[in-house]
Amino acid sequence: MQNTQATSASAARLDSAVEALKSLLGQRTSTAEVQREHHSHGESYHTPAMPDVVCYAHTTEEVSEIMKISAKYQVPVIAFGGGTSLEGHVNAVYGGISIDLREMNKILRVSAEDLDVTVEPGVTRQQLNKALNNTGLTFYVDPGGESTLGGMAATRASGTTTVRYGTMRETVLALTVVLADGRIIHTGTRARKSSAGYDLTRLFVGSEGTLGIITELTLRVYPQPEAVSAAVCSFPSIESAVKTVIETIQFGASVARIELLDDAQMDAINRYSKTNYPIAPTLFFEFHGSSDRHVTEQAEFVQSIAEEHGAKGFQWATLLEDRDKLWEARHAAYYASLALRPGSKGLVTDACVPISRLAECIEETLADNRNAPFPATLVGHVGDGNFHCIYVINPENEAELTEANRLAGRMATRALARGGTCTGEHGVGYGKMKYLEAEHGPALEVMRTIKRALDPDNRMNPGKMVII
Amino acid sequence: MQNTQATSASAARLDSAVEALKSLLGQRTSTAEVQREHHSHGESYHTPAMPDVVCYAHTTEEVSEIMKISAKYQVPVIAFGGGTSLEGHVNAVYGGISIDLREMNKILRVSAEDLDVTVEPGVTRQQLNKALNNTGLTFYVDPGGESTLGGMAATRASGTTTVRYGTMRETVLALTVVLADGRIIHTGTRARKSSAGYDLTRLFVGSEGTLGIITELTLRVYPQPEAVSAAVCSFPSIESAVKTVIETIQFGASVARIELLDDAQMDAINRYSKTNYPIAPTLFFEFHGSSDRHVTEQAEFVQSIAEEHGAKGFQWATLLEDRDKLWEARHAAYYASLALRPGSKGLVTDACVPISRLAECIEETLADNRNAPFPATLVGHVGDGNFHCIYVINPENEAELTEANRLAGRMATRALARGGTCTGEHGVGYGKMKYLEAEHGPALEVMRTIKRALDPDNRMNPGKMVII
Repeated sequence: MQNTQATSASAARLDSAVEALKSLLGQRTSTAEVQREHHSHGESYHTPAMPDVVCYAHTTEEVSEIMKISAKYQVPVIAFGGGTSLEGHVNAVYGGISIDLREMNKILRVSAEDLDVTVEPGVTRQQLNKALNNTGLTFYVDPGGESTLGGMAATRASGTTTVRYGTMRETVLALTVVLADGRIIHTGTRARKSSAGYDLTRLFVGSEGTLGIITELTLRVYPQPEAVSAAVCSFPSIESAVKTVIETIQFGASVARIELLDDAQMDAINRYSKTNYPIAPTLFFEFHGSSDRHVTEQAEFVQSIAEEHGAKGFQWATLLEDRDKLWEARHAAYYASLALRPGSKGLVTDACVPISRLAECIEETLADNRNAPFPATLVGHVGDGNFHCIYVINPENEAELTEANRLAGRMATRALARGGTCTGEHGVGYGKMKYLEAEHGPALEVMRTIKRALDPDNRMNPGKMVII
Repeated sequence: MQNTQATSASAARLDSAVEALKSLLGQRTSTAEVQREHHSHGESYHTPAMPDVVCYAHTTEEVSEIMKISAKYQVPVIAFGGGTSLEGHVNAVYGGISIDLREMNKILRVSAEDLDVTVEPGVTRQQLNKALNNTGLTFYVDPGGESTLGGMAATRASGTTTVRYGTMRETVLALTVVLADGRIIHTGTRARKSSAGYDLTRLFVGSEGTLGIITELTLRVYPQPEAVSAAVCSFPSIESAVKTVIETIQFGASVARIELLDDAQMDAINRYSKTNYPIAPTLFFEFHGSSDRHVTEQAEFVQSIAEEHGAKGFQWATLLEDRDKLWEARHAAYYASLALRPGSKGLVTDACVPISRLAECIEETLADNRNAPFPATLVGHVGDGNFHCIYVINPENEAELTEANRLAGRMATRALARGGTCTGEHGVGYGKMKYLEAEHGPALEVMRTIKRALDPDNRMNPGKMVII
């Protein structure tokens, strides 16, 4: 936070801004400490930083007016969604206005013919899927937590289904964005593809509120598959599991999820979920297909690949109840890890590499983890080369936090050395800024050029992503 | 071409630039009229415009040096690939240097494990697929013609397989780009996904050489499907054909191609290819799947959907020979149209709309076509909502060209009114610039802001995409 150029509002300017916000939004403007505290952090260990004022926007036009107030009084603005950030994205490191967008939570349009929806940014994926319940459609991008779709677009989020359905990069068709000076723009159209100009949609997706504030999203949804099957099996090594993943994808199997869990994670799950899985590297699969026969064929084929690589105890499940039981165990991974150490908290890392380099990258990471002075588990969306460690630390113990951060840094650097990225899906916030020079080299300056061009006053989530 | 702010090189500066280019590249610099003429146009009717000098780059570093010469002497630069542009992208409307990149045609790396390749920009898709022949991999994006992959990325090209494999937007993982001042940057990584900063890869994809010159590309490739089947059938109306497409996609069929041809196009094909298809709106399908049984199931299911919508004469083909015969007819569509009128040339339009609006949009377009004073046929990558008319005009007749352009304009405007885009896959060049204000509104100014930030001298393909 040594950015001396970033805008910090003077007390006088700030007071004027708060007055203007109150006259715009009335009681939806708050300077109460409890509100400011709630908007000072996401779910990570980064030092909280309170905004000076919190306001709750209800319309794009209100967000535009707030940005004009920000411009007039030169006060920073931070967009706030579900508050599930893991890299300090929403912490108001220069104070200013936190715009909470969760009350912009209307689902504006659902089209079963076009397989798309238009929503406000405060809609969560859970809310969207509930609304889609009887339409035969599903929204698939699934980060953990009650994230908002606006926040997910802003961080280019993904999850377990990316191997088949893509990340928010592939999912967002069009956006409404409010710029630093309050201008409202619409990027993209409802057409599935276009060659009509610069891809502003993809520029704002992943820009973490540093270039504009997303106030409406048009998103792809998918038909619910006619048939689903799931499978789980354990492997003699990480390498054999990853080889199975590579061959499964090369075969072109209609796999919708492939999740890797290491032995420590499987042990944690057994203890937490009272299951009895082998304590070994384990893959969880889900296949989506056009008929029961089709998904059964897929599962059988993948079983034969897995067994060639030494897999044991291949179980597969087509009944909803059996699949749910299986995925319940996978979904409990985070809480199972925390339960290894009562009173602990999890520090979650995030890297992504070409899948051919995944096994070595994970093995080196596990070697690090073995020496850690706290429990450490590993899960991965391995179809994409993305994996996470959960460091189960005592939140009161500074030394543990330091060591967890050191290991996270080694993991990020290791991913970069393998042609990968320092963050597959969590984003930069300010936690990952230190790796961007190593990842992007001279391209980082181009990012700064774009930031300067679109936010010359540096009022949009200053101190995040790139320093100008 | 009324852009008075664009850089036009003075004679003295130009002479100095040519001298510098000759000392850099020797005989790979040419001011010969035949070379300049060849680099003055793509394959469209836009008025040719010759560059002052043509040079053939062999390395990224050479492109960087050329850009430094461009900067020093303030001479425009236009990147030139396969010369297949349909919207005047490569015409040197302010003269300057045409950098021909076709001799940068090495395939640098193929990874079957990661399903990706790295290539130089002058590699064509045909060359890449030939090189992939024995690897079990395929590159799928297939615009017509011998386009280069650099040019395809620069125009965000797509083709018949987009419904399953995406456009160049989804296909490009990483780029090497030379900027206006000669800086070389690398965007993206080989990781499948990343949340590490602004998506510069997607910014340069589709930027048509106006922000930087692509000198290396990392691209996704796909495993060849285990089984393929194809099918063709004719419909009582455009609407019934489009409804069949919508339901096919909603069903989640593993369809890799769905092509619509109107009755005029089918008539042209019958005459040209000596086939005997009904003269009616017709769909060609291709299914990619994991087994013969799987693709047969798909084809049978789609047959039942089609027949519900009144389709007749459903033929399906799983044998390679039969499939080839079927697709040969589809691929001959353009030449079949031209053969309707010996000595003619084709003016090809391009629009894309939400698929729910496709039938009405095509029907209105066909109503226009019926009054045209020349043959007009229609083909569409209808799984994406993308369609083209081929206006078969006499190239000597100005009135026909004017009328064809008027009809093309009506089609673009019609697409915009339906929430679509004025170009699905051909790009803007200078042919489609006139529609960008209507399509993007205030977002167009953001494109100008980005252009100004990255190319402040306006030397990179000036007079295209956006005017600054």
